[in-house]
Amino acid sequence: MRDALVAAAFQLFLERGYEQTTVDDIVALAGVGRRSFFRYFPSKEDVVFPDHERCLADMTAYLADSPEDAEPVGRVSAAARMVLLMYAENPAFSVQRYRLTKKVPGLRASELSVVWRYERALAAYLRGRFAGRPDGTLQADVIAASVVAAHNNALRSWLRSDGQGDATTAVDHALDYVKAAFGTPPTPTPPPPSPSPSPSPSPASDLDESDDVVVVVSRRGAPMWRVVQEIESTLSHLREN
Amino acid sequence: MRDALVAAAFQLFLERGYEQTTVDDIVALAGVGRRSFFRYFPSKEDVVFPDHERCLADMTAYLADSPEDAEPVGRVSAAARMVLLMYAENPAFSVQRYRLTKKVPGLRASELSVVWRYERALAAYLRGRFAGRPDGTLQADVIAASVVAAHNNALRSWLRSDGQGDATTAVDHALDYVKAAFGTPPTPTPPPPSPSPSPSPSPASDLDESDDVVVVVSRRGAPMWRVVQEIESTLSHLREN
Repeated sequence: MRDALVAAAFQLFLERGYEQTTVDDIVALAGVGRRSFFRYFPSKEDVVFPDHERCLADMTAYLADSPEDAEPVGRVSAAARMVLLMYAENPAFSVQRYRLTKKVPGLRASELSVVWRYERALAAYLRGRFAGRPDGTLQADVIAASVVAAHNNALRSWLRSDGQGDATTAVDHALDYVKAAFGTPPTPTPPPPSPSPSPSPSPASDLDESDDVVVVVSRRGAPMWRVVQEIESTLSHLREN
Repeated sequence: MRDALVAAAFQLFLERGYEQTTVDDIVALAGVGRRSFFRYFPSKEDVVFPDHERCLADMTAYLADSPEDAEPVGRVSAAARMVLLMYAENPAFSVQRYRLTKKVPGLRASELSVVWRYERALAAYLRGRFAGRPDGTLQADVIAASVVAAHNNALRSWLRSDGQGDATTAVDHALDYVKAAFGTPPTPTPPPPSPSPSPSPSPASDLDESDDVVVVVSRRGAPMWRVVQEIESTLSHLREN
């Protein structure tokens, strides 16, 4: 029933436009009554984003269930990934909606509001984790915004390519950029490209565990994110050993 | 006239609520006709954010006028600072509006849309600067979102404190966090605090200019942002010499 209503609504939005389609048109095409529509969707707008409430609830529950020692940036990245998976479940529908949302100003405003709620959910978790840190709320807000922006950049690229290609690889790559900037070792897969020139971290594994020093040797022209990535990977290597 | 309309509107919004106030009420209190109102404001909502269009235009012009070799993260940070200065021009009005916006859902949606436009203006500039970089649009989007989040964090703290204290110091401190993460040397003032333990970068200035290597020695427990800050400051020191 719910899926039939969404399908009917999208067919009409694309044929006639969003503004020109009424709830009556949708229920007539779907062959159900108005009450059925409003049982599933508070308004015509909600039929466009039918899964966000569930996804927001899932994400909030996932963050609430985090182990106490979970690495915070990695945890919110994994939470953001859940949104991507929701889109990737149904590429054709996601691409349709993307096209529609770009055309209809009211829908863009609605989408911004949804994105803002995701961002606040991520920030709320980080604020809890960073409580007591100097600048904890600042860091939480900036990292949450970065994660959302990276996610959306990868998601939009995937949607613009008509849902071709592997959305998860793209979003993981994007989230690795955020992790490198804010201090989580990037995901080990896929392996990092080896461009030249690249920084060459000293292995540093000959340091005694009591040593509190890391030496990084890097090409001066290397981009900062790559230097950070190398330091991160050296540090995590040290911590594992 | 324009200021009188804004003042009348805010008085009524606070006395009666936003939804219960009509444009007729506003013009009656301000002692002008409806046409005067609509000459300045397309709708009742626009009277709440009267300066954003001008500020967006100023910001866009500022970014368009950037020197070709302007440091990109610093440039968008300076652009975001223009928004802060707009708020700080009139603390009492900004605090009033902040309280109103928190109470009225329609206004929050409108504010999100404004914030989104600022963010896209910053991202558009960065995308231009990063054109040709691998992941240029990703980096542009993430940095723009970070700058906006840092700015808004500082702005909201200032608004919550009823506009007490120095808003520019707070926003500069917040933007320094973004600069440290994404590769601009933080603003030289205020001087960085000297906590202990802190990393001790080797001065490295004895390297020959032809050397392409930077050595940073850092305490292993130092937070990543501080390590980055030290590397940045070492690199910029090297480049200046």
